[in-house]
Amino acid sequence: MTEMKKIRWSEEIVLPKGYRAAGVAAGLKKDGRKDMALIVSDQAAAVAGTFTTNQVQAATVKLCRARLAGRTGRAVIVNSGNANACTGAQGLKDAERMAQLTGELAGLPPEQVFVSSTGRIGIRLPMEIIEAGIRAVVPALSPGGGADASLAIMTTDTRPKRLTAQFDVDGQPVTLSAMAKGAGMIEPNMATMLCYILTDAAVEPGALQACLSAAVAQSFNRITVDGDRSTNDTVLFFANGLAGNRPLNPGHPEWRTFEHVVRELTLKLALKMVEDGEGVTKVVTVKVLGAKTPEDAELAARSVSNSLLVKTSWAGDYPNWGRVMDALGYSPARVEEERVDIFYDQLPACKRGVYAGTPIEDLARVVRQKAFTLTIHLNLGAGEAVVYTCNCTEEYVRINM
Amino acid sequence: MTEMKKIRWSEEIVLPKGYRAAGVAAGLKKDGRKDMALIVSDQAAAVAGTFTTNQVQAATVKLCRARLAGRTGRAVIVNSGNANACTGAQGLKDAERMAQLTGELAGLPPEQVFVSSTGRIGIRLPMEIIEAGIRAVVPALSPGGGADASLAIMTTDTRPKRLTAQFDVDGQPVTLSAMAKGAGMIEPNMATMLCYILTDAAVEPGALQACLSAAVAQSFNRITVDGDRSTNDTVLFFANGLAGNRPLNPGHPEWRTFEHVVRELTLKLALKMVEDGEGVTKVVTVKVLGAKTPEDAELAARSVSNSLLVKTSWAGDYPNWGRVMDALGYSPARVEEERVDIFYDQLPACKRGVYAGTPIEDLARVVRQKAFTLTIHLNLGAGEAVVYTCNCTEEYVRINM
Repeated sequence: MTEMKKIRWSEEIVLPKGYRAAGVAAGLKKDGRKDMALIVSDQAAAVAGTFTTNQVQAATVKLCRARLAGRTGRAVIVNSGNANACTGAQGLKDAERMAQLTGELAGLPPEQVFVSSTGRIGIRLPMEIIEAGIRAVVPALSPGGGADASLAIMTTDTRPKRLTAQFDVDGQPVTLSAMAKGAGMIEPNMATMLCYILTDAAVEPGALQACLSAAVAQSFNRITVDGDRSTNDTVLFFANGLAGNRPLNPGHPEWRTFEHVVRELTLKLALKMVEDGEGVTKVVTVKVLGAKTPEDAELAARSVSNSLLVKTSWAGDYPNWGRVMDALGYSPARVEEERVDIFYDQLPACKRGVYAGTPIEDLARVVRQKAFTLTIHLNLGAGEAVVYTCNCTEEYVRINM
Repeated sequence: MTEMKKIRWSEEIVLPKGYRAAGVAAGLKKDGRKDMALIVSDQAAAVAGTFTTNQVQAATVKLCRARLAGRTGRAVIVNSGNANACTGAQGLKDAERMAQLTGELAGLPPEQVFVSSTGRIGIRLPMEIIEAGIRAVVPALSPGGGADASLAIMTTDTRPKRLTAQFDVDGQPVTLSAMAKGAGMIEPNMATMLCYILTDAAVEPGALQACLSAAVAQSFNRITVDGDRSTNDTVLFFANGLAGNRPLNPGHPEWRTFEHVVRELTLKLALKMVEDGEGVTKVVTVKVLGAKTPEDAELAARSVSNSLLVKTSWAGDYPNWGRVMDALGYSPARVEEERVDIFYDQLPACKRGVYAGTPIEDLARVVRQKAFTLTIHLNLGAGEAVVYTCNCTEEYVRINM
């Protein structure tokens, strides 16, 4: 895959051709921070989306799911500070009104305006503030407005999460840029996270959705901060075709490059979320090998990744592999104690179910790092899975009190 | 059930006829607190037991399970400070040695000596200290030694948990007394908890086991502190028959009284564990009504009871019913958002999926109490379940770091 070398990554957000964005402070956040974002594509874009699997879904998620049937979109309007979730029929009306007003003011068909909300659940949107926000954000749209928009979608995030990849398709320069938010209520299958991916590449709608779903499965659905799954998670992927390439689909010679970039992009953003998780000071890659099945591998990895006792032991810089064994034991995955090997980075902590003899101080040195890998070999089969998790600190509790 | 009136409850431990106990400091705990307990019945007792469902089980649990086949027991030797879990074949040998030495010194058949350990996982028992502890605890046995034993089984508990019930069977005074420990790694299906129930009543072994299993299902298996399930959980129930009643079984006219007392005893002890949960300042009864099935009711109640975001919101005295909705939504139970009602004590927080309008300050007053009930009506069927949980505070994290 020599073509991979030509991908230029940047931690900034450079909007692709034909996109404008803006972020303003409407007053939903009490402290004057930006809380309303708008992203617009100058021409109709193919759109793909993935959403929370929670049975309780925000009004905006319901609206986006319905909008997605049309397969094309022009814009997404986002507010932070209020989730518009558990707000019933009124919530849906309010979400529709957001799309309607944005469409009117920006000159777009309202049914092509997507809507996201993030923040507190169960309180009706303060529509006066929202409408004033929309009136302020539309005139602020500009090709350089991506950074402002990425700030406006944040809630408890301590920093914006943005990324741009540039590469060629059919000899045309293509840009893929994304902004995301998410720091708590993060757990596999989409947590309170929002992510908007924009590209000027031409991509066939069905291929765009398949590519996004596959990438999300291995990135946003593999991270966990607290095991809580939000009502509002949304990833939207817009492709407006202005780069001028032949439409990408699995038959296109550069499809694999495109897929690769989308996968990398979502994984990098997912890891940024864990790093910025509420109270998080270290990111841990939990790798399970040798499970009976891939499903078992994932169940085992999630059980360890969500164990409060495992996560607090990491907060204390202690390589408590016994708590890892405990979490494996109560996972629904098949585990045979006397076969389990556990490694902190390369160091064996447990061999065949018992202490491997590595000095605790050596293991502790691994755990003290800002990032390390916990590898668990179940020695039962060929199932493998990776989950990205973090430590759980007192700060997490303070933030969520 | 007029006979229920004759039950005398006490928060102290009064050993039933024919039992002696002791607790000493062997040196497993670095701070000089008691860490080795022994309970002995002067004659062979019927024994029942329930154990952790974790696939990873401590050596002592394996030993107790095997011992239980014999249905009779004379003693249980317990150490705190080291769990003898994930210690492989050596761990089993060490547990056998504990039974062996206790038997020799106390003049009991070793195969009738049960063994429990609780504490850190994955480190071999320091057998010199253990053996010295056994040599010290055997001569200390006395009919008044229950209180000392209840102290010696504690780990992170801030107070001992003990209870005695006295009542008549066949006109004979019967005593049922129990000691328990457990404050963290507590989750339905037996957490790091140990409980020893002693009675001088005569009870048929099969009936004893059935009675214990039913009581544990509604008590110890219904509490949760942190969603982590331990490798060491053990409840043992000894009945030595010295009260002189006709052996109790389901055909005995006073069987229901006995069952009732055991159920109450285990529930009271289970609630003591939650109250003393690591960092816990409030106990919350989560009641789910109207679920499609009883299994769904339990799944929904456990999802809410284990949600870190729900538990931290309670720590902040905030009635965040939106987080309750969120946790219901991601539970495996069937939930229809627009049917859900949520109450804090008697006050409606959410009616048919949306905010019920009760002033937040009124709901907050409920949450500020040291104990309250969260009632969730799913309005989908007749399934019901109760789980006892608690708030999650910064102190919990500090304790487990």
